[in-house]
Amino acid sequence: METEHKHLLYVVGMGPGAWENMTIEAAAVLQACEVIVGYTVYVDLLRSHLADKTFLTTPMTREIERCEMAFREASLGRRTAMVCSGDAGVYGMASPVLTVGARYPAVAVRIVPGVTAALSGAALLGAPLTHDFCAISLSDRLTPLETIWARVDAAARADFVIVFYNPASKKRADYLRQACDRLLAVRNPDTLCGVTRDIGRQGESCAILTLRELRDYPADMFTTVFVGNAETRVQNGRLVTPRGYRDV
Amino acid sequence: METEHKHLLYVVGMGPGAWENMTIEAAAVLQACEVIVGYTVYVDLLRSHLADKTFLTTPMTREIERCEMAFREASLGRRTAMVCSGDAGVYGMASPVLTVGARYPAVAVRIVPGVTAALSGAALLGAPLTHDFCAISLSDRLTPLETIWARVDAAARADFVIVFYNPASKKRADYLRQACDRLLAVRNPDTLCGVTRDIGRQGESCAILTLRELRDYPADMFTTVFVGNAETRVQNGRLVTPRGYRDV
Repeated sequence: METEHKHLLYVVGMGPGAWENMTIEAAAVLQACEVIVGYTVYVDLLRSHLADKTFLTTPMTREIERCEMAFREASLGRRTAMVCSGDAGVYGMASPVLTVGARYPAVAVRIVPGVTAALSGAALLGAPLTHDFCAISLSDRLTPLETIWARVDAAARADFVIVFYNPASKKRADYLRQACDRLLAVRNPDTLCGVTRDIGRQGESCAILTLRELRDYPADMFTTVFVGNAETRVQNGRLVTPRGYRDV
Repeated sequence: METEHKHLLYVVGMGPGAWENMTIEAAAVLQACEVIVGYTVYVDLLRSHLADKTFLTTPMTREIERCEMAFREASLGRRTAMVCSGDAGVYGMASPVLTVGARYPAVAVRIVPGVTAALSGAALLGAPLTHDFCAISLSDRLTPLETIWARVDAAARADFVIVFYNPASKKRADYLRQACDRLLAVRNPDTLCGVTRDIGRQGESCAILTLRELRDYPADMFTTVFVGNAETRVQNGRLVTPRGYRDV
């Protein structure tokens, strides 16, 4: 499948935010690159650690433009990395980069994974993800809302632990409440849940609450939301899901 | 919630295997510890990078014993870390450590997340996880098989991307085949899938195949299996899921 590539473009997951939450490989790749491309907010988290780089940024929703920018730089022979917060693949830029890459056959793409918010948020809360889990984005910018709700219903009935990405925005202020109402139709209102905010950044916080309480939680675009399964419990103030239904 | 803790036990996700796949924080924690506790195979991957440490290991399935061992060391005031492959929380040791921790109130537990196989395998294959996904373990050691199949059915119908952990073992040789038969009842047999093996270790490999072909794939305990959604495609030899159903 591999063709002869003249150049290489890296897509790097930087983890939740702090430099030390990145993998050693991710940091080495960024340090070896000349050009760093990314969404303004994430690039600003890196600047102080990467002197003498060229930084190219685009605002949110300008992702395809950002990909073209990165491929143009790589095509000119510059060592280039596109950075994403969290993992490069989970709701990240790896997919649009690989798609745009069809127009740049001389540039090979290498993906460097990172710690996504489901993992960094879970570590802060305790161990909510120890059993089967789903990641669901509540953003309906590219996915019909009925598809999202069908997934919430399916995950609720099959007792998956659920992680909600993009639980709210100004335009979608009540989506988390709607999701909770769907969950409450089949799950116990005392199901233990968690919220994390600004993981690895200034003001990092987390809280444990019930599904009933989660319904009224004021989530925003920096919040990641966790819904436990039927066995999830609080232990010494940490949210813990057992490894299975036979685990004691 | 926090009580006065005299000692600290770290639970560290080391990523898929190679030292550079660990976060900078994980490596710093392990380097600062005196005692490293873990499953023999994972500890052996670390030894060459950590001179002058005390290594304590137990075989697989002896997890509670391993937790007790770690708490005893931490209680004696030794800087101690329990290591897990991948992430500390996803089917990892964070949960049993927090549970056993109830008996060691003087020891606080700090979880350091890592890159789980879903993320490292996805990066190798391309970008299969870009949309909503489920992680499901096919091990029925601690979970009734009917619960696992109900989750496979729910994930299949709601068109989640699926990652199977523990797809096979000697005792469960045909579980992946059974899972595929359930998926084939509702999903297109040409659905694009991927398998990864020994990520970040010697002999690392990956392959893209259809759901029909996956049914006969000889998975083992070092394999991670990916099943795409209805939109997953192959682009320049990489497995790519679009960011949503409206993404082109």
